[in-house]
Parts: sequence; structure tokens; C-alpha cells
Amino acid sequence: MDLKNSIRSIKDFPKKGVYYRDLNPIYLNPEAFKEVINKLLAFAKSKSPNKIVSIESSGFIIGSVLAKELGIGFAPIRKYGKLPFEVLRAHFPSDFRDTTLEIQLGAVKKNEKVIICDDLIATGGTAKVAAEMVEELGAKIVGIAAIAELDYLKGRELLKQHELFTLIKFKKQNEI
Amino acid sequence: MDLKNSIRSIKDFPKKGVYYRDLNPIYLNPEAFKEVINKLLAFAKSKSPNKIVSIESSGFIIGSVLAKELGIGFAPIRKYGKLPFEVLRAHFPSDFRDTTLEIQLGAVKKNEKVIICDDLIATGGTAKVAAEMVEELGAKIVGIAAIAELDYLKGRELLKQHELFTLIKFKKQNEI
Repeated sequence: MDLKNSIRSIKDFPKKGVYYRDLNPIYLNPEAFKEVINKLLAFAKSKSPNKIVSIESSGFIIGSVLAKELGIGFAPIRKYGKLPFEVLRAHFPSDFRDTTLEIQLGAVKKNEKVIICDDLIATGGTAKVAAEMVEELGAKIVGIAAIAELDYLKGRELLKQHELFTLIKFKKQNEI
Repeated sequence: MDLKNSIRSIKDFPKKGVYYRDLNPIYLNPEAFKEVINKLLAFAKSKSPNKIVSIESSGFIIGSVLAKELGIGFAPIRKYGKLPFEVLRAHFPSDFRDTTLEIQLGAVKKNEKVIICDDLIATGGTAKVAAEMVEELGAKIVGIAAIAELDYLKGRELLKQHELFTLIKFKKQNEI
């Protein structure tokens, strides 16, 4: 299946000059969704993780499925103010707006092996902060997995200290 | 497994007087997560749905797993401005803040059988709006599934025209 063709590229969303990569058609199509999960699962299994950590909110869609299939725990990283209990907080400028992310203390344990799972790697900024938060809680990042990657934003370079696994690459900003 | 004991109740979050029901300990515990999914799956299977629709963002965590296990499509309902392409929009006052929700046109098809899936039913207001959006797109709601339900907020009454299936009930506001 040509997974790339399942992604809908939308010009000027959420702002002018940006091609938004809409992955929802993948989730709508059971065959495409299954293929995506199976491929991410093969990568994840090879890393024997103890936990999947995903970033709100699209990351949840694939991260929870991976965790369930692997029989391991799932922990969300959420936007400011959404997580109760004690949290670790990180503030950073992201692609479209400044963001504060939080993870619950105890979401990952010391020395646990963690895969960060998101839908798409753009600049890599969000995934990098997520990885740093997990590491600050004492766990180890054994991989970052995503469905798609925007090569032209050089997220792979920003995340070079981690193993990044993606299924689909967009080489150019105006590639449809 | 006592699933109810896996939920952490937190007083005065996100505002004074409210007991927040934190379901994250369920997702962290593979056995609890598996039990939750299996029970929701049994209900979902009995309804032969064509699609799972979940509400951003915690609803994604279980909705996508159900869709994957059933081999059917998954469609998100998201907060304002997050979904590209053509959307149907609904504005309504919700529990803690006013909310505008959106669903992509084409996310569900005419006469499709849909299960709305969320983590928790509080007042039922969000699930009701979600169901109305799905119906406005021409699909049929065959059930609403959630992990937990706050009896004292009477969501079941608000949703009485639908079949609501939940695994855990909190009878009183200050029940821990």
C-alpha cells in the first residue's frame, strides 16, 4: 500500500506558506492503519521498551495501540494544565505557538526503556523536549517512532542523538 | 482486577470543589489497560460498528485501540482549529470551559454505524454534542462507550436516547 498517498497535504494550514500533512485519512482506512501499526510495532519490538510515551493529542492515536500490542504501559505528555497530580513541566517555542508540556511524575520509572511515539516529526522540537522530559525522570529513550517526517524541517538532525524511525518522508515543503 | 481502584481521584482539580478522576494509572498498567479494552471491545463488537469516533484528547487513547482491534476506521473529533480540510463545527458550554469541537466532513459516511468512545462521561455534554455531530453527517450512533461515569452528574440521563456502556461508576462527588 502506498501510505504516502493516504496523507492529505493541505496548503496554507494552519497558516500561509505551510503545507499541513493530514494523517487522518490513514486512521479512517483500516488497511492503512494496520500497515502503519505493524511497521511501527516491528521497530518498537526490536527495542524491547518498557513504556510508550506519546505527545498530546495525535500521538495518542498510535502510541496507545503500540502499547496495547506490546503489552506495556502507556503514558501521555499533555499540554499545560491537563494533567492532575504532580507533574514535570517544560516550556518551549514550538512550530506554530509556544507550548508548555507536562508529564506526570511516576509516568516513567528510573532506567525504564521508553519509545517516544508521535504522528509526525516536523522540526523535531516537540519530540526533543518530550525525550528530555522522560530522561529527566530517569528513564532511557530507546527510540522515537512516528508515521511521517518532514525532511525539509531537519527534525532528524535535531534528534540525532536518538534513533528516529519513520515510515514516510516528505522531501520538499511543496510536495503533495 | 478492581479497576475502580486503578483510578486516582484528585480533589480540587482543575478547580476547587471538583474531584478529578485520573485514568492515567490504568493506561500505565498493562493488565488494567487490557481488561478495559477487552470489556469495551465486547460491547463494541455486539454493535457491529463501521467506525469509532473519539473526542480529543483522552478519548483517542482507547478509541484508536478499539478501532484497530475491530479492524474498522477511527475518526477524531478535535478542538477548534486543529483539523484541516472541511469540517463541521459545534460550539457548546462544557464542564470547565466553553468548547468548540470539529469533525472532518467525510470522517463518517451516511448510514454508517458509529460508536462514540471517550475516557469518561461526566455531564455527558461533550458526548452528546459529539453524537449530534456524527448524526448531522448522516451516520447512526449505535452506542457510547467509556471507561468511567460520574453518576452524580447525570450524564446517563442527558444521553438517554443512546445506549451508554461504561465499566466504572462513581456514585458520589466526594467518593474516592
